[in-house]
Amino acid sequence: MTMNVLGYAAQSATAPLAPFEFTRRDPRPDDVVIEVLYCGVCHSDLHQARNDWGFSAYPVVPGHEAIGRVISVGKEVTKFKPGDYAGIGCMVDSCRECSPCRHGLEQYCEEGNIQTYNGIDRHDRMPTYGGYSQTILASQDFVLKMPAGIDLKAAAPLLCAGITTWSPLRHWKIGKGSKVAVVGLGGLGHMALKLANALGAGVTLFTRSADKEQDARRLGAHHIVLSTDDAQVAAAKGQFDLIIDTVPYVHDINPYMPTLNLDGTLVFVGFLGDISPMLNTVSMILGRRSVAGSCIGGIAETQEMLDFCAEHGIASDIEMIRMQDINDAYERMLKSDVKYRFVIDMASLKA
Amino acid sequence: MTMNVLGYAAQSATAPLAPFEFTRRDPRPDDVVIEVLYCGVCHSDLHQARNDWGFSAYPVVPGHEAIGRVISVGKEVTKFKPGDYAGIGCMVDSCRECSPCRHGLEQYCEEGNIQTYNGIDRHDRMPTYGGYSQTILASQDFVLKMPAGIDLKAAAPLLCAGITTWSPLRHWKIGKGSKVAVVGLGGLGHMALKLANALGAGVTLFTRSADKEQDARRLGAHHIVLSTDDAQVAAAKGQFDLIIDTVPYVHDINPYMPTLNLDGTLVFVGFLGDISPMLNTVSMILGRRSVAGSCIGGIAETQEMLDFCAEHGIASDIEMIRMQDINDAYERMLKSDVKYRFVIDMASLKA
Repeated sequence: MTMNVLGYAAQSATAPLAPFEFTRRDPRPDDVVIEVLYCGVCHSDLHQARNDWGFSAYPVVPGHEAIGRVISVGKEVTKFKPGDYAGIGCMVDSCRECSPCRHGLEQYCEEGNIQTYNGIDRHDRMPTYGGYSQTILASQDFVLKMPAGIDLKAAAPLLCAGITTWSPLRHWKIGKGSKVAVVGLGGLGHMALKLANALGAGVTLFTRSADKEQDARRLGAHHIVLSTDDAQVAAAKGQFDLIIDTVPYVHDINPYMPTLNLDGTLVFVGFLGDISPMLNTVSMILGRRSVAGSCIGGIAETQEMLDFCAEHGIASDIEMIRMQDINDAYERMLKSDVKYRFVIDMASLKA
Repeated sequence: MTMNVLGYAAQSATAPLAPFEFTRRDPRPDDVVIEVLYCGVCHSDLHQARNDWGFSAYPVVPGHEAIGRVISVGKEVTKFKPGDYAGIGCMVDSCRECSPCRHGLEQYCEEGNIQTYNGIDRHDRMPTYGGYSQTILASQDFVLKMPAGIDLKAAAPLLCAGITTWSPLRHWKIGKGSKVAVVGLGGLGHMALKLANALGAGVTLFTRSADKEQDARRLGAHHIVLSTDDAQVAAAKGQFDLIIDTVPYVHDINPYMPTLNLDGTLVFVGFLGDISPMLNTVSMILGRRSVAGSCIGGIAETQEMLDFCAEHGIASDIEMIRMQDINDAYERMLKSDVKYRFVIDMASLKA
């Protein structure tokens, strides 16, 4: 069964996304094929479409927050059947044998996980193509079940923005009595507020804009600290068990370090690059504080997060767009002009 | 009982250490007074004598690795009696009521621990003077017992170099099956090798000098990685649970980061300053790796470490000096010309 599929692709770092017809690989016995209904738009879609990270292989069909309806399954598939609602997030495969894989941490696979797009399939060495397309497929072990009652549109961003903030919250054992701060209020930041709040933590948002206060409180923040106000930052000294830093561009983290408590951790989830200005070790040594990084999340914990979100009525705040509007959406995203995630209605592809 | 005491002090940032007679504060009911027999020489003695950190208050009588014989105890003292061998390390007091203090982590006291020298006493607001002197005193709660059979001379450096490396080894749960790397082979580094080895870990030394190999192996290293050899560093990828970085001056840690395994931590114990060149987040995010700091250790864990060292026959490698030779020793220390810690024979003070 060869699948010819319509999607949207960037053909080069400077070309806008445009319609692109391509052939999906033939499904394997463990594959689940999904008709994509909704696909979230992540900052990294834009980065990879424009080769900002230097490893894009064109054409790039972005999209790693894809949710849809199962249309066929291979003969070895036991977890899904046609008609099920299912999702594919940031990964479609990994070695499955290394220690991280065996511990449900496929994102840290020692051979490298296979990205949903702009990756290379482990079996046929063909490029992977993402969710800005009519269909998508992956081994059942990398497909998420949509819990009953979840809003499929608003659940799409959970597959990246949700899990990327959920994973550190769980790894650093955040729960009742914990104190969490979030730096940055975008797609990841708004999910971090919701999830930390639902886990029972006291939640603070560090922000540079006082006008975000009302929205932050609605999303789950109990306190707002203006990061431009030294006195407010100083007053937060020694408060936080965990700071989730979602800012995707270079920024100074030194002012945040003393707001961690003893053994507290600041974790980067959105910024790949050099920490500038330079990180100073004094507050780290005098408070046994850490700076760490965290990468998306494993498949099992992604399912856990989806189930938790369904149970707690949590999803992303979204703005629906048509596939044809993706290039405008990228421009708006660059200006942080979205509350808080664009989701593509894939039905528009046929319009 | 007023105690007039002879010691060695720096009277300014530029003056060499010289004999100095001063009055110790009157002992309080919970105090233990110790005749100092041996005092280790720490890099931070030199830094504070010369005001390298900018907060020295002269005269500075350095010394926070002091071991000696108890000569008197206050009437509330229950843990020590005259004639006991005892030690005083980096701290002589703390608030004793905050959460870190109640958890035996006095070094992270929220009101600040009181340094053995160049500190201010919490009760009488008088300066504290260190172990380069005939006697020293502190509340029994900040005095360490010398376990039977320990070599008192070689145990002195355990009170700073020992505990500073022991505390992170214990905090990050190093034991059999763990893999630890040590950066830098000085006073702290040589203790880190011994202690990590005795805890059952696989131990690697990162060093820039191939000629340190034999000594490193004698001290407990199983492997040596030349940090100047990119191929050797690359071959160590994903190996270590913990890297103890003992280097006291600015240096690039980026090459070490990929040698941490998933969830591994590089911990600074000797460098206070800006991390330069800038720390890159990529290997942190892609392997959930951390950079942390750790400060000396609490009193209870210092006692635990002393008992462990006595049981395992571990002590510092030392070179004995006379008090009168301290300024020469500082110059040699600056050139790393000591294997691996100078210890002052305080009997020389009377000579």
